Amino acid sequence: MAKDVYLDNHPREKALAQYLTLLEEAGALHPGPAEIIPVEESLGRITAEPVYARVSSPHYTAAAMDGFAVQASLTFGASETNPRQLAVGSEAIMVDTGDPLPDGCNAVIMVEDVHFVTPEVIEITQPVFPWQNVRPVGEDIVTSEMIVPSNHRLRPTDIGGLLAGGVTEVAVYRKPRVAILPTGTELVEPGSDLKPGDIIDSNTRMLAGLVEEWGGIPKRFPITSDDFDALKRALAEALEQADLVLINAGSSAGREDFTAEVIKSLGQVLFHGVAIKPGKPVILGLAKNCPVIGVPGYPVSAYLCADLFVKPIVYRKLGSVPPVRAEIEAVLSRKLVSSIGIEEFVRVKLGQVGGKTVATPISRGAGVIMSLIRADGIIRIPRLSEGYAAGERVPVELLRPLDEIKQTTVIIGSHDIALDILANHLRRLYPEAALSSAHVGSLAGLKALQAGEAHCSGIHLLDEKSGEYNIPYLRRLLPDRSLVLVNLAYREQGLIVARGNPKGIKGLADLTRPEVTFVNRQRGSGTRMLLDYLLAKQGIDPGQIRGYEREEYTHMAVAAAVAGGADAGLGIRAAAQALELDFIPLAEERYDLCILREYWDTPYIKRLLAIMAKKEFQEEVRSLGGYDLRDCGKVIWEQS
Amino acid sequence: MAKDVYLDNHPREKALAQYLTLLEEAGALHPGPAEIIPVEESLGRITAEPVYARVSSPHYTAAAMDGFAVQASLTFGASETNPRQLAVGSEAIMVDTGDPLPDGCNAVIMVEDVHFVTPEVIEITQPVFPWQNVRPVGEDIVTSEMIVPSNHRLRPTDIGGLLAGGVTEVAVYRKPRVAILPTGTELVEPGSDLKPGDIIDSNTRMLAGLVEEWGGIPKRFPITSDDFDALKRALAEALEQADLVLINAGSSAGREDFTAEVIKSLGQVLFHGVAIKPGKPVILGLAKNCPVIGVPGYPVSAYLCADLFVKPIVYRKLGSVPPVRAEIEAVLSRKLVSSIGIEEFVRVKLGQVGGKTVATPISRGAGVIMSLIRADGIIRIPRLSEGYAAGERVPVELLRPLDEIKQTTVIIGSHDIALDILANHLRRLYPEAALSSAHVGSLAGLKALQAGEAHCSGIHLLDEKSGEYNIPYLRRLLPDRSLVLVNLAYREQGLIVARGNPKGIKGLADLTRPEVTFVNRQRGSGTRMLLDYLLAKQGIDPGQIRGYEREEYTHMAVAAAVAGGADAGLGIRAAAQALELDFIPLAEERYDLCILREYWDTPYIKRLLAIMAKKEFQEEVRSLGGYDLRDCGKVIWEQS
Repeated sequence: MAKDVYLDNHPREKALAQYLTLLEEAGALHPGPAEIIPVEESLGRITAEPVYARVSSPHYTAAAMDGFAVQASLTFGASETNPRQLAVGSEAIMVDTGDPLPDGCNAVIMVEDVHFVTPEVIEITQPVFPWQNVRPVGEDIVTSEMIVPSNHRLRPTDIGGLLAGGVTEVAVYRKPRVAILPTGTELVEPGSDLKPGDIIDSNTRMLAGLVEEWGGIPKRFPITSDDFDALKRALAEALEQADLVLINAGSSAGREDFTAEVIKSLGQVLFHGVAIKPGKPVILGLAKNCPVIGVPGYPVSAYLCADLFVKPIVYRKLGSVPPVRAEIEAVLSRKLVSSIGIEEFVRVKLGQVGGKTVATPISRGAGVIMSLIRADGIIRIPRLSEGYAAGERVPVELLRPLDEIKQTTVIIGSHDIALDILANHLRRLYPEAALSSAHVGSLAGLKALQAGEAHCSGIHLLDEKSGEYNIPYLRRLLPDRSLVLVNLAYREQGLIVARGNPKGIKGLADLTRPEVTFVNRQRGSGTRMLLDYLLAKQGIDPGQIRGYEREEYTHMAVAAAVAGGADAGLGIRAAAQALELDFIPLAEERYDLCILREYWDTPYIKRLLAIMAKKEFQEEVRSLGGYDLRDCGKVIWEQS
Repeated sequence: MAKDVYLDNHPREKALAQYLTLLEEAGALHPGPAEIIPVEESLGRITAEPVYARVSSPHYTAAAMDGFAVQASLTFGASETNPRQLAVGSEAIMVDTGDPLPDGCNAVIMVEDVHFVTPEVIEITQPVFPWQNVRPVGEDIVTSEMIVPSNHRLRPTDIGGLLAGGVTEVAVYRKPRVAILPTGTELVEPGSDLKPGDIIDSNTRMLAGLVEEWGGIPKRFPITSDDFDALKRALAEALEQADLVLINAGSSAGREDFTAEVIKSLGQVLFHGVAIKPGKPVILGLAKNCPVIGVPGYPVSAYLCADLFVKPIVYRKLGSVPPVRAEIEAVLSRKLVSSIGIEEFVRVKLGQVGGKTVATPISRGAGVIMSLIRADGIIRIPRLSEGYAAGERVPVELLRPLDEIKQTTVIIGSHDIALDILANHLRRLYPEAALSSAHVGSLAGLKALQAGEAHCSGIHLLDEKSGEYNIPYLRRLLPDRSLVLVNLAYREQGLIVARGNPKGIKGLADLTRPEVTFVNRQRGSGTRMLLDYLLAKQGIDPGQIRGYEREEYTHMAVAAAVAGGADAGLGIRAAAQALELDFIPLAEERYDLCILREYWDTPYIKRLLAIMAKKEFQEEVRSLGGYDLRDCGKVIWEQS
């Protein structure tokens, strides 16, 4: 290996500051020349100059009310006992709001305050004072007054004000052009037929969306294979056209990672490697006075590097600074361990349970874009911290508005596909609401309930002694909690095996065959407990099962593992059906929602029950396969 | 008068709720049919269906690191003292991140952990466990998994996830089409030559901007004159094309206000008049199952009615709800009196001074669009409240992000045009910062300093006895405050008179001539005090001056009044020059910034001083006319 496989490990804030300084000195942060555009098309654009009014508004003295324009002195002394009459057309001239004030008049009597004696004579019982109900010239805007300053993002009200001030064109900063170069021999366009090793180029489309949101103009280039010369040609072309270039990916130090060398061949690399996770293999460079950033290939790394290093540049080139994300304090539901020397960005789900906001970490994998899609917020673990303890109050940057989080029902426990369908119906029927479900297994769900971190928990826990579901566990584990147990569904559990069942698996006994590989669920999950119960009942030694130690966290993950080559896993029929795998039924189990009674009468729970009662919901769940909804929504048991 | 001139006065929340119920029953709130669009073009659109993955990601078992794929069991037992050697190509197969895991392998050794003995043999000193550094199929996304639910606004990360999940097209709700009908014989297009009575149609462009921001498609119609039949034809045409129609304006009850009648001729009017200020004459109607809203003509009324009544409909038609505006608590700097029975929306400037956020009300006029442009927030005075006392803590809805408000220097006091230029340079040099200046006059500015509501105050107060500026007042009025007085500029004060000085005004004595009308500044302003000082010195009786009682709040307003017909006003030369009026100099005065010393060393003040020292700033101020910057930025006096 000729190349250095180790990257730098610079602190983020130092790397960013030094990089911005370098760019500043190269003139690469300044907004380009302004462009003049019609005010009507300027929504969201940023002014390059202050804008001054060209006419006053109003530009003439105007009636501010519908009524009669008068010389105020004619009305002095009018009262209930001493009404004053005025001749219409000479002493009192009828005006509508916005009409020019007739010569000689300096006030307007509101039409509501007028009594018609004849069509030609009005009577009033109170005076008006000079300039009452009159809009003086420039009441709103005076000619030459500054309507908006420079570096101001134009809003609809600004557009109204500019036009009212006689301004029809405005100088705004050009949108920075951001070239985005997808690189990698493995990349294929969305919609292609996939063969092993192909990766859909989704990242550069995500980056393009971010650039657009920030106010830049993204320009995606065609995919370049991992070839130094091809990549150099693409970069040279991008530098001609763009104010900022992103290369995605090839930013690490592998055999086929050419990004850093290519940037060096046309300019310089200031940093290669920053002490962040995900996102470490970022490259911060400069070529021909244009910032060039090597963005790592894992989607979460790509997102974070864009957010941390690309966003500030796009905003600076717009004469602005990125908006600060709202931050709240939340209670951490589990311990978060992190390495000293690395600043880590952990995606979390948030929920408002009782008086507190609870943060539950989700997958920390750099390759899991779903962790960003599902996240409500991000916890930054500082570089010199080893992490946080469970129950600690930590700051969380919000990715979703707080008011939406407050309307979210939090369910922590076992995974079931019906919960996704519940979430979807909830969102459709109550657009202000949401369901946040964390899949940690039934037992961990009950622990979360006990700790007051969830409104309810989805569980399917078979008591080995009684053969009864859930209730014995609740009695034992949550004796002091006031609970309502509601059934969601009965579902078939069984062995998920490859399509056509090529290994001829008929039951659990076949799992011990040496040529059969198994994929298991994590300890504490109801499915794992069912497996262990059934194995014990049949006298099968788990030690004989190849793959018993391989743990996945959801039914779908087990099914995916079988689709990916494992021979069998225990899970629900719906998961097998979704991936078109074969299924050998072993048991029917009851999946219930255990609800803390204190939330029973709140929208958090009432909304769920309303949906569970709906025919459309039940039919959709039934269509997944293996579900029986005979008791869906029924109270199974209560504990006060 | 045939028409009823009184409008209804329905509580807002009742009117809105009943209106939405009516629309719901008419099916006018439902999103229309979905449209299928490419995922790549779906940024910001809202899903009409849940979206399920069509492929897993990864869709094959993949190496998660650059290194060597192995069968993990071959590495068991490796240690520093007992290194294990593996044959490259047979036992250990070189892989890059993302490569498919070769058959027979179930783990990857990171390249960093490998020592090359020969090009054909590697050595390791620690084992890997099965599935280490391997991405199982579906680690990120499993086929058939729900990637995003229905009614979800698509973000860049969602686009990445959808494409990675093999989805290339997505069903989204159509953007609601909103027809906007400008009506009024007085309306002219922006850019027209203006004659008295003409009003530039700026409102419907502001409304179009709002609709666009909310996710709708605005369609502006040509201007319709105040003619029942023409308006009815326009509405009928709009109803053919749109999901929602706004008519602006003609919504009041004047002679030429036909909007309500026209809506009734094609449908029904549920409410005409809601108990809000501004915005009372709103019309909430329905025609041919399409919501039709009569939006009042004053710009602030138009904005508020759109925000309160149009926004919820646009969002509902997108299967969503409007985002809730952030709200903070602020200390009110002055008393706010409001009528019982009316819910009032007061625009305020906000500033972070010391530990507290201070809210200062700005113009309450419905016609003053600048009050919205300048506002940082809105205070709602409830319908059954008479207002708030000065110093009271009140909730404020934010129109500008809180972090921007925290970076804002608050200056309260006398008005000077140089402050606008200062604000502009500040914004350009420090995009994160802003200057909020409230024009209340010098004396009120010192009161604000005393109350801790501003960082500094702009003042020009002539002491009648000593002839000295500012210092005697500070000694007298703020004896206990630690202060730094810094000069901004010397400026010429004098009489602003019409161009060519048609009335031949030469000095203050001419103001008492019966054919001369004057326009004054408000009590407590430095300019008013200068006038009274000069009048007293010359023995002129203010009672002899026609217009002495007409008060304006800024130099520019005085100049505008002169441009609008008054004969003279006292003000600075720059105001006269801006409006191309004549000017008769009377005095040079010193305009200083009085700074609370506790902020002297903060960015609030340091940024201002940095700009005042800049040549570009000084030259721009000088070019206004009548300014002398010989002491600009110089400390004139201190009090500890």
